[in-house]
Order: sequence, then structure tokens, then C-alpha cells
Amino acid sequence: KMLRRVLLTALFMGALPSLAEVSQGHISVVLLGATGDLAKKYLWQGLFQLYMDQVSSGHSFTFHGAALTALEPGQRLMFDVLKKLACPPDESPNRCAVLKDQFLKLSQYHQLKTAENYTVLNREIETLLRQEGLKEAGRIFYFSVPPFAYTEIARHINSSCRPPPGAWLRVVLEKPFGHDLESAQQLAAELTSFFREEEMYRVDHYLGKQAVAHILPFRDQNRQFLDPIWNRHHVERVEIVLKETVDAKGRTSFYEQYGVIRDVLQNHLTEALMFLAMELPANVSRAEEVLQCKLQAFQSLRGLEKNSAVLGQYQAYASQVQEELQKAQDYISTTPTFAGVLIHSDNLRWEGVPFLLTSGKALDERVGYVRVLFKNRAYCTQSETLRDAGQSQCKAKQIIFYIGHGALKTPAVLVSRNLFRPVMPEGSWREAVGQSDLHIFGQPLSDYYVYSPVKERDAYSVLISNIYHGRKDFFITTENLLASWGFWTPLLDSISHQPLRLYPGGVENQHLLDFEMVSGEVAFTLAEPVELLNPSGLMPSDYRTIQSKFRQSPLVSAWSEDLISQLASDIEKTASRTVAHSGQFHLALSGGSSPAVLFQRLARHHYAFPWKHTHIWLVDERCVPLSDTESNFFSLHNHLLQNVRVPYFNVHPMPVHLNQRLCVEEDRGTELYAKEIMALVANASFDLVLLGVGTDGHTASLFPRSENGLEGAQTVVLTESPVKPHQRMSLSLPLINKARQVFVLVLGKGKHDITTLLSRVGHEPRKWPISGVSPSSGQLVWYVDYEALLG
Amino acid sequence: KMLRRVLLTALFMGALPSLAEVSQGHISVVLLGATGDLAKKYLWQGLFQLYMDQVSSGHSFTFHGAALTALEPGQRLMFDVLKKLACPPDESPNRCAVLKDQFLKLSQYHQLKTAENYTVLNREIETLLRQEGLKEAGRIFYFSVPPFAYTEIARHINSSCRPPPGAWLRVVLEKPFGHDLESAQQLAAELTSFFREEEMYRVDHYLGKQAVAHILPFRDQNRQFLDPIWNRHHVERVEIVLKETVDAKGRTSFYEQYGVIRDVLQNHLTEALMFLAMELPANVSRAEEVLQCKLQAFQSLRGLEKNSAVLGQYQAYASQVQEELQKAQDYISTTPTFAGVLIHSDNLRWEGVPFLLTSGKALDERVGYVRVLFKNRAYCTQSETLRDAGQSQCKAKQIIFYIGHGALKTPAVLVSRNLFRPVMPEGSWREAVGQSDLHIFGQPLSDYYVYSPVKERDAYSVLISNIYHGRKDFFITTENLLASWGFWTPLLDSISHQPLRLYPGGVENQHLLDFEMVSGEVAFTLAEPVELLNPSGLMPSDYRTIQSKFRQSPLVSAWSEDLISQLASDIEKTASRTVAHSGQFHLALSGGSSPAVLFQRLARHHYAFPWKHTHIWLVDERCVPLSDTESNFFSLHNHLLQNVRVPYFNVHPMPVHLNQRLCVEEDRGTELYAKEIMALVANASFDLVLLGVGTDGHTASLFPRSENGLEGAQTVVLTESPVKPHQRMSLSLPLINKARQVFVLVLGKGKHDITTLLSRVGHEPRKWPISGVSPSSGQLVWYVDYEALLG
Repeated sequence: KMLRRVLLTALFMGALPSLAEVSQGHISVVLLGATGDLAKKYLWQGLFQLYMDQVSSGHSFTFHGAALTALEPGQRLMFDVLKKLACPPDESPNRCAVLKDQFLKLSQYHQLKTAENYTVLNREIETLLRQEGLKEAGRIFYFSVPPFAYTEIARHINSSCRPPPGAWLRVVLEKPFGHDLESAQQLAAELTSFFREEEMYRVDHYLGKQAVAHILPFRDQNRQFLDPIWNRHHVERVEIVLKETVDAKGRTSFYEQYGVIRDVLQNHLTEALMFLAMELPANVSRAEEVLQCKLQAFQSLRGLEKNSAVLGQYQAYASQVQEELQKAQDYISTTPTFAGVLIHSDNLRWEGVPFLLTSGKALDERVGYVRVLFKNRAYCTQSETLRDAGQSQCKAKQIIFYIGHGALKTPAVLVSRNLFRPVMPEGSWREAVGQSDLHIFGQPLSDYYVYSPVKERDAYSVLISNIYHGRKDFFITTENLLASWGFWTPLLDSISHQPLRLYPGGVENQHLLDFEMVSGEVAFTLAEPVELLNPSGLMPSDYRTIQSKFRQSPLVSAWSEDLISQLASDIEKTASRTVAHSGQFHLALSGGSSPAVLFQRLARHHYAFPWKHTHIWLVDERCVPLSDTESNFFSLHNHLLQNVRVPYFNVHPMPVHLNQRLCVEEDRGTELYAKEIMALVANASFDLVLLGVGTDGHTASLFPRSENGLEGAQTVVLTESPVKPHQRMSLSLPLINKARQVFVLVLGKGKHDITTLLSRVGHEPRKWPISGVSPSSGQLVWYVDYEALLG
Repeated sequence: KMLRRVLLTALFMGALPSLAEVSQGHISVVLLGATGDLAKKYLWQGLFQLYMDQVSSGHSFTFHGAALTALEPGQRLMFDVLKKLACPPDESPNRCAVLKDQFLKLSQYHQLKTAENYTVLNREIETLLRQEGLKEAGRIFYFSVPPFAYTEIARHINSSCRPPPGAWLRVVLEKPFGHDLESAQQLAAELTSFFREEEMYRVDHYLGKQAVAHILPFRDQNRQFLDPIWNRHHVERVEIVLKETVDAKGRTSFYEQYGVIRDVLQNHLTEALMFLAMELPANVSRAEEVLQCKLQAFQSLRGLEKNSAVLGQYQAYASQVQEELQKAQDYISTTPTFAGVLIHSDNLRWEGVPFLLTSGKALDERVGYVRVLFKNRAYCTQSETLRDAGQSQCKAKQIIFYIGHGALKTPAVLVSRNLFRPVMPEGSWREAVGQSDLHIFGQPLSDYYVYSPVKERDAYSVLISNIYHGRKDFFITTENLLASWGFWTPLLDSISHQPLRLYPGGVENQHLLDFEMVSGEVAFTLAEPVELLNPSGLMPSDYRTIQSKFRQSPLVSAWSEDLISQLASDIEKTASRTVAHSGQFHLALSGGSSPAVLFQRLARHHYAFPWKHTHIWLVDERCVPLSDTESNFFSLHNHLLQNVRVPYFNVHPMPVHLNQRLCVEEDRGTELYAKEIMALVANASFDLVLLGVGTDGHTASLFPRSENGLEGAQTVVLTESPVKPHQRMSLSLPLINKARQVFVLVLGKGKHDITTLLSRVGHEPRKWPISGVSPSSGQLVWYVDYEALLG
């Protein structure tokens, strides 16, 4: 009855769907959390927009609001919201009134609390369809509820509310989707037990923002212009920014758990980043292709470290938290409300290009944008005064996806006139006029081609329309979500106790939150105002590294990251000094995971290291082929050699693989290596040997009670490890002790016991080979992190 | 008599030199070419300035003008010049009149034409000194004469005019100092046979320009600020520019021989470049230290290639040359009047930083400057409108040594306020005020600290004073000169037939001379206006490379540089296609000099080459250690491997050096390599083999009538070369013929005969091994340059 009326109305409006179209079937939309904030503010309006747009599509609709509230009060609450629905300004008041009336009649409220409630809802939908003689096309369940409720609801929908075969199910989920990689995985696993991947539509409302949604189509439609310049040779930097003026007041119970990185960077800004950085699929509207390219782009991102981010907190935040969450006056929140993060992608297209993601609350303006700034590769021979925007290659070149607010006040796409006139879809974007006195990103607006949407659409309307159309490319798949959490979680872990810069908020922030890139890291430009945070006047660097003694030798100790950076600096200093003195530097390196971090640090932060004059030797090796992932050399190559320029002749892997076999005595690999050392290293005395320590006190591949290598004349030996792979090649203790300098690196809680033990025992190499390290005329320095030292 | 008067006058002026000072002796200045243009315009004035400055220094002076003109007319001409000498504005008219009068009295004219003339001059000087009872301090001979006269004059001075032992000789030479490396070497050798290095003062008057002369002192005095930022991590680019509005009219007889590069870039701009790029010596006023650092800096410059420069010629130049040099109407001059050159320094400090040298006549403004632009490494969180110059790290940061003219109209040193407040020597530079509405390099003048000289001094006055003081760091030594010519000559050679862009001159040039950097090269930004130069409408690229057949296989032919770039592109295409298809690319490379150019091209221009998935094999090797400069692998490493990122495991040098001996059969190097190929290359079929051809028709290390490798089952063989080193290792012809693709590269006139021969003969590998190259199922392509093809 109700539906017949719909058809009649459509007829009356002059938009009669043909029978074939009608036969496309019925769609039931269930909005869970129908009386909540998001529903009130955006979702019902989005659903109404969907209805207006699709009333003559051939599908019929019913809309089911649902909540925990009982039927009658729930109904009242919901219809209060529905009554306020508005038509877009270009809709005729008549048609608007009719459509709104229909929409209200197609909408009903349900209490969904118990399993039974869901069964009833399902029965009602079935009954309605049978009565009206309609085929079912599909069901949309929109979860506008807190994430803790997800599993329960999902279970009920899966068991009671699935449409019959041939009709689809789409469940729409709102963030937060977890809190870190582990929780996101857990939530994803639970949902996956109820829904198939193609049934889930995870909303990131940024993907519904018109300027963000147009990034990929823009790249696609302007391939001819962008192909040659969309790479590290032409792009100087990318900025992805969401600045807010509001603060977290009234929302601290949510915000205190999440902070700006989880709230904005992990999702919204990361998605924008992906649209820019990913390879362009052949077909940008095919969700599966887009997803594959996105996942590849995630793979290429360089891991974030503590110093990849600068963090801040507006000054009033602490008291807001204290008040709203009833915390004590001395409660200190470590939740950042501002973050600037430097991201690098290590693929051939983007290597070296900085991607800066920035967001914060209580800033001086509200604005969101994605800005691609191109390098200036031109020299303009004519004088500045003669340069105009369209012709001069010396004016800044940029492409900006302006998300909204700010000086422009509308979404827009801006392209510098000296770049190219972009191809834009005529139906949806048009060239904007006027406001030529406005300056934006350092240039008058007249320097750009400016396009704005023909029709500004709210993000939720866009997304609801895309759910209807099954455009999964506008949503976050499980893989995508986990890739993003996988990328952000290490940073979140490493900064959890990082100091935050306090900022007053608004324009008073001045330059306090400006930050700079230095050697792949970021740091605030201005030094911390001392009076604000550091009443003692003691700077962190003052107590950063402890210098003292361990086993009668110098000890450097710090938290592991600081320790590694100190060690890397010390190695570089030794290298430079040695090269200046003797023209070459012989460095023998150990395998294992601790050195890997050191190698990365050396490759990324020590540009002045004299690699060209450095010889790289191995302290020990596993008897596996060099290109085996178990090989020490392989790891060294991966983390260091492939990123720096050591001449091929200066690289000396251990000859564990000769005559197609591994570490066979007759092949004389140890002799070969010993001869190579004798031939190249003066007096067989390495300039620097880097060692580690095992929990059993082994060092190099010299294990307790080893038959070889602890003494005697042999300089390179074959040994047996208690763990696989058992066969090893190693420098001998006597050879190690000929070195000019020996650094021993010890990291992590797992090494606390052996560290403690070593601090007490004497020279007992047969029990603990490391205790036999004692350079006869060189220097020994211990680098032990706090965890190993203090447990 | 004359000198006593000088002393009396000095007494009268209240500037009595003490006897001790007087005892410092007498200086005779001989100005050769005393009535020429340069002397009239600058040199006499400079000598007068020297006299004014040094009148009370303790030295006494006489000034001897000399020319070929006979005594009487010469005298008249010279004194006409001297009468016009002026004092600086801050000199009192009284003192000026007295000093000028003295100067005239101390000056006399000499005809210097014959050997006898020089002997007479020498006798006169000796007589005068004896009469006055003065000790001789030294003699300055200033050569303001055309360079062809240098040798003759030098001979006379050396044989007749040397001062007695204990007194110094300084000869001052004006450019041009040769025309290319060879002529400069020749001239230098001649001069060296007459003068010791420390006696020669080669003038580059740019070193007397106050802003240029202050570059090194500025770097020295601001070490604390510059040390961290004076490197590739912080410097974005350097521009060294001399723009002129005048053209060459009236000087074409000189200009037509030299052109803008020899006239301005090789000397003036190069010297400024050196001051910026060189390492800073501990003592910047010690000429020897400065020279050593400069020479090192020259060593680090990357060689220039044809495409390192863009060249132009103003349109009126041709007719000026035709008129002034009485050339035919269709005479075409290939002399550039505009050049933009991109220079790279390959040391650790500057790698990757573009140094742009630009100069031209008939441009839109007269200005000279040296500009160091720093990278913007900051993200400024506060909105643009709030940014001020001193605080914002997002405003451009630059240091400019403003040589003169242009908008500022005076020499100046400018430092962005957001960089640092520079230390400037108070006596000679002072902070400039006013003109805050002026914009310079994109910013209001108020964004800079601006310093200008307390006293503006003409370059020649500065230099003459420095000759007097023996400050050799202000002059060009022989080594420095030859280093500069050594750097510029290859470019001059390679561009001698390069097309020039015609430009109308003045502001009408518009953007016609703007140029851009692309992959280490430069090119004009705007395409050549077709109507101007190319009436046929045929673009050069249309006939750039010839494609046809050679020995029944495809032939690509072009001038060598274009051929190499085509070959490099083809190799990259093959590599990308192969990697996309099979995940790896097996490339076998030959040694020799032709491939070296190719390797450089691949390393510098093919950033997208899939090196990570490429295996590098050797086609042949000389039996020398791999790190021997004769080794093919060494050259490959030098030109390619050290500049790209091929994983260590993918590099396969030939095992010519085993068990500390070279290519001994029992060591089975050939078997080892054959096994390695079998193990890694599917079907032992290389994806691409690059070959060359010897004048005897050899290819790889397969020589005519070789016993090994021309046929049979052995895939890697030892062979004998007719030239040293005789022993070789080589892939065999049958193995080469298994390749999927074989490219043969043939370059140079020397290969013309063998190329012609090969075009006629059939398959006769025993006579000409290259004729046996015929891939059984792969493709063969010949890359032969015009010189080899056409002779």
C-alpha cells in the first residue's frame, strides 16, 4: 500500500520509472543509532538525499531507524529529526514537500536491543516485500553506534537479518576501527566472522570530501600533464594538513583515549596521502585495483621513528581533562592535540620527497588542504618585474586540493597557471571567478586555475550515495585499515612517553609549532621556551647519555634509540679521523638485529661518512649462501650497503660458500679470508670491530667452550653454534684483540642478566667468550642501553 | 731631485714618512700600453689611487708609461690622460691638487719597441735610483697590451729589465690568457720561461669587485653560521650571473673570436664559483692555501657536456659582424652572446646542488650577482598572514653577493633575516638603510640584512693596491688558469657547432632565454619559435637518428652523443620490459672507452632503470686484479656501479684473480664463471649482451684466429690478445649467440675502415670474430655513429 503510493507520486512528479527499472527491486536501509549525534547531524539528511536522487532509479526504498530506546520515545525522537530534513536550495518547494512527505512515510522506528528484536525486524521486512510483491535488491545496515557495540549487532544481523540469496547485504561502519594494530586486527577478525569483505563499508568521511574524492580522478584525467612530473625529480614536497580552531572541550573522554594521530592522521590524512602517493591504477574507479595500488604504496612507506614527529598539546587541555574526567589537579595527559609528521616513501617515484602530515586543535585557523609543491628547476633570465604567472617558470608551481574552510571557504582544486590547464569533469567542477586580491600559498589567486564544485555536497551524502552504488573504492577495506594501523602503531608506541610542546592556542601560537626537517627527522624550529616547561633549566640532553665504566672500560648508556645514535656518531668520527690519517678505514661488523638498527641509522643520518674509503669486513657469518635471508651479510647489505656507496672492492663478505658448498674445511674459506685480511689490513689490525653479546656470553660466533678461535694463531675459524644454523665462520678472539678499537653493543631487557653477570666476572673466555675481549693495544668501549643495564 | 721634492711635499702635507719607512725603498711602475683604452679608463686612475694611498707608506714611486708610439706623440697622448685624473670625492681639493701635481711629475713616457728601448729604460731607472741614493724595492710591469705581444715584451723584460737581487719583479697580465686549454698552456709555458710563478699577477678584474672579493672573507668571518648550512643538505641552488644590456657592437673583432663563455664564464663567473664552492682554508688570506683549495674544487667539478649549456645570440649580432669584419651577407656566426651553464660538483659537500652560471649581452638589465638560495625545510603551522621576515622559516632564505648595477645600483651583501645577522668588517662594510619598498629576488629589501661598502672602490684600484701589497690571492695563478681552461675546453669543443637561440635583445627577450634543469642538463623552457629559425618547419629531432639496416640487422646511427642517449634509452626499455616479465634482467657488458660514456649516461639520466633487479655480467676481462685501473670491471665500477644501486649479489665480475694469481688454467676461473651463469641465467641466455668492435674485427676478447671461443661447447674461455695485457677471459661466441638481444656499439672515425669492411663481408668469424655474432633466436642491433659509418 505504502509503496504503491510511492509509485503514484513518482508518476505525478513526471518521473515514472519503467517497469523494467522497478523490477530492480527493493532496498531496506537500517540506521542503527538513529537518534544519535551523527545521525541527527548528517546521516538522515544523507539518506533523504539518497532518496531524492534515486526516487526514479527503479529501486524502491524503506528506511528503518533503530536504537536501544523503546518504541514510543524512540519514534518521537526520530521523527523530530526527520521533520527538520531540508532539500537542497535548487529543489522546488513543491517537489521538496512531496518528497519529504514520502520519505517520512517510508521511514519507521524499531527498537533493536535483543536477538528477538532483530528477528522481528527481519520478519517485518520480509512481510512487507511479500505484501507488495517486490523482489529484494539489498539491505544496508548503517552502524552509527560506539565500536564496543559492533560485535553484538554484527552477530544479530548475521544470524537474523541477512537478505535472501540474490540480494546483497551492506554494513556500514564508522570509526574508530581500533586503537592500534592489535585492537584493529581483533575487531577486524570479529567482524570477518560475521560479514564477507565485500559486505563491509568502513567510512572515512574524508573520502566523501569533494576535493579529496577528486584526487584520483584528477590524476587520471590529467595523466598527460602529470606523468612526467609526478615524481621525486619534480615534486619538492607534499603537505597534507587539517588545522582546526576548536579544541577538544566536551569531547575529552573520547579524545584522551585517541589523540590527534589516531583521530585524524591515521585515517583522514593517510587516505589523502595514499591517493597522492599510490601508483595510478589503469581504472581508478575499480575498487580492487585502487586497493592493490594503495597496499603497495603502504609497503613503500619508510617506517616512522620517534623523531619522525613533533607533538604538541594546547595548554588548556590538561585542565579540561581534569574537569571532564574528574582527574586530580596534578594529572598529566600525554595525549597530543597537535602533530606534524614527516613521511617518506622509499619507492623509485618518491624516494627523498617529504610528505608532511599536520593536524592540530586550537590552531589559528580552520583549513584543510593537500598541497603538492613542485621544484623550481628554472632559471629565468628576464628580470622579476617582467614575470607573469602563466609564463614564468620561476613562479612557484603547485597543485592544491583544497578541502574546505580557510581563506577560500569552499572546496577547490587549484593548479598554478605555469603548470598546465587541468582537465576537469565539466558536470561537477567549474572554473571559479573573482577574489583576485586573495593570496593563497604565497601567490595571488590569479596565479592559479581555480575550480570549485558545481554543487557543494556534504561528505555523508556523497558516501551514502556511494554505498548505494556499491562503490567500494570510497571505503576502507580491512587490508587497507590494517596496513594503515601497521604503519602508525610503531610511532604511537615510541612516542607514548614523548614530551609534548605546550601551546597557548589560536594566533598566540605564533611560531611555536613551526617545525623543520633535518636529515629525515623533524624538530620544532624554535627551542622550547624554557620558562614554560623546564623550570629546572636542565635540558634533556644533559642527562641523555650516561658515561661511566663497565669492566674497567668506558661505558656509554642511554635509551636504545639515543644509544644507537651516539654509537653511529662515534663510528663516523672514528672513520673520518682514520681516513684523514691513513686514507682508509677497516670496519668489521657483526650480524644480528641490534646492528640492523645501527646500520639504518648510519645509512640515513650520516651523509658525510667516508664510505668511499671504508672497507667492510664481517666479524662472523652463518654457513648459508650470502643471499640467504639468514646470512649476516644479507642483512648488512639490506640495511646498510644498498643505501650507501661502498666500492665493490671494499666489501669483504666471508667466503662461506665455495665450490657450491658451505663451510667445508677443504675449501679453505677461513684461510682465504685470513689471507685477504693480511693483504689489505695493515698488521691485520682492524680500525674498528663492532661486537654484540649473546645471552650465553658469546660474541662474534665464538661460543662458550668453543674448540676454535678462543686462542691460538688461527685468525679466522669455523665454529659450532648451539642454535641453527649450527655452522659458523668467525674472526678469532686473538684477531679481534689486535683491533685499534672495539665497540660492544648490548641492547634490551633480554640482555640484562648477562650484563649483570659480566659486570662481576673476570677474564674467563672459555665460559663467556665476550669476557676475553680485551684489545692488546686498542680501546674497548661498551654501548649498553638502559634496559640491558638496569633491567 | 724629483724625489726630494716628493718628500718635501709629503712633509708639507703633514704625512712625513720616517727614515726607516723611506728606507723601504723605491718602486718603479711600468705601464705597457699606457695610451690604450684600459689604461685610459682604469689603470692610470688606479695607479694614481695607489700613489695617493701609499704616498706616506715609506716607499717612493716613479710611474713609467710605455707604448709603441714615438716619444713625443706618446708623451702628449699620455699626459692628456693624466690630466684627467680625479681624486675621490672625500679628498680635500688642496691635497688633491698637490698630489696630482706630484704624480704627474713622477710620471714619464717611454717608447718601448726595440730591445734597445728596454735596455735604455732599465738604465734610466738604475741611474735615477743611484742619483737619489735610493734602495730599489721592486718593479711592476703592467701588460695592458694584446696577448700576441706578451712573449716579446716578456723576453725583453726578462733579459733587460730585471731589478737587482733583493728587489722584486711583478708582471701584471691582462686576459685573454689563451683561447682554450692548449693555447693557454702554450702561453703559460712561454711566460714561465721568462718569469717565476710568484712574479706573475694575472688579472681577473672580478676579483677586485668588492662583493666578489668579500665572498671568502664573509665565509671566514661567518663560519659559525655557515658551517652547518653550507652544503647540499641546505643549499638549494647557486646562481652566478652577469647580465649586460650593451651588445658587442664595435668590439666584434674581439668578440667573434671569444664569445660569452671565454669572455665571462671561464674567468669571472668561474672565479666567483670557486670562492663559493671551495673548501674554506684555515687562513683565507694565504694565497697558497686558497689556491690549493681552489684546485681541489676544480677537481670535483663534474665534466660538462653539450647539454650542460644553453646558448643564444642576439639577432643584430650577425649583421654587426658582417659589417665590422667585412663578411658576406650570408655569413653565419656561431659565437654565443648568451650562455646558461649548469655545473655540478661531485664532492660530498655539493653533490646534487646546481650551480647556474649565466651571462649575456643585449639582455633586459645590467646586473651582476652571486646568489645562494637555501632549501625550505620548514613547515610553518601558523597562517601566512602572520609570518614576518625575521622569524618565519618559511620565507625564502638566501645570501646574495650583489656585484653591482641592477635595482640596488651598488655592491652589497644581503642575508635573509631568517638566516642570521652576519658578521661584517666594520671598517669596510656598513649596514645600508632605506629603499624598503624595493623588491629583490622575490622579497622586500626589508627581509634582508643589507650591507654596502663604506667606500665604493673601482676594481682596478683594488687590484693595483693588491699588486703593491703582493696579495697573490687576488690573482690567477698558472695552475688555476689551466684548471679553469681544462674544465671549460671540452664544453667549448662540443658546442662549437651547436645551434644558438636567436633573441631580439632587451626586454623583448621575454621568456625566450629562460631555461630549465632536467636530469642534470639544461634546456630552454620555451620551444624554439619556429618562424624565427626553422623556416622549413623541420625539427632537428626529425633527422637526429637514422634507422636502417647493417649486415641484415637493424642499424641505429647518429652523432655519437645522440647515439649513446638512444642506446641508453633502448637498454632501459629492454630492462624494464624484461623485469616486468621475468622479475630480473641479465645484462652482459663489455669493457673499453665507448661503453664508459654509455655507463655514465645510464647512471646520470636513467633514474627509473630497474637496477635492483638487474644482474651485471662481464663480456670479457683483462687478466689483472679487479681493482687495477686496466680492468674492465674497474672501469664499469667507476662509471656505473658506484653511481647506481645494483645489489652486491647481482654483480658478477669475471674470476680472473684466484689464489692470488691471474688466469691460471688450474684455478678454473672459466669453469667457475660458466657455472655461475648456468646457475643464475635461465638457459644461459642473457637478456642483453653489449658488444664493441675492434679495428681488427675482434669483439668481446675474441680475436682473429683465436683458438678458443669462436666455436665449441665451452662458454667461457681464456684467450690471447695481440695487445697488452695479453691474457684475457671472454664469453664465447656460441654463448653470446644464445642471448635474447645483442647490441653492438661502434664509435669514432677510427672504426670507419672496419665498419666499411664489415658492411661487405659475410660470416667469417675466424677472420673477423664480430662477423660471427648472429643470435640464434635473439635480435641483433647495430649502434654505429656517423663518424664510424661515414668516416
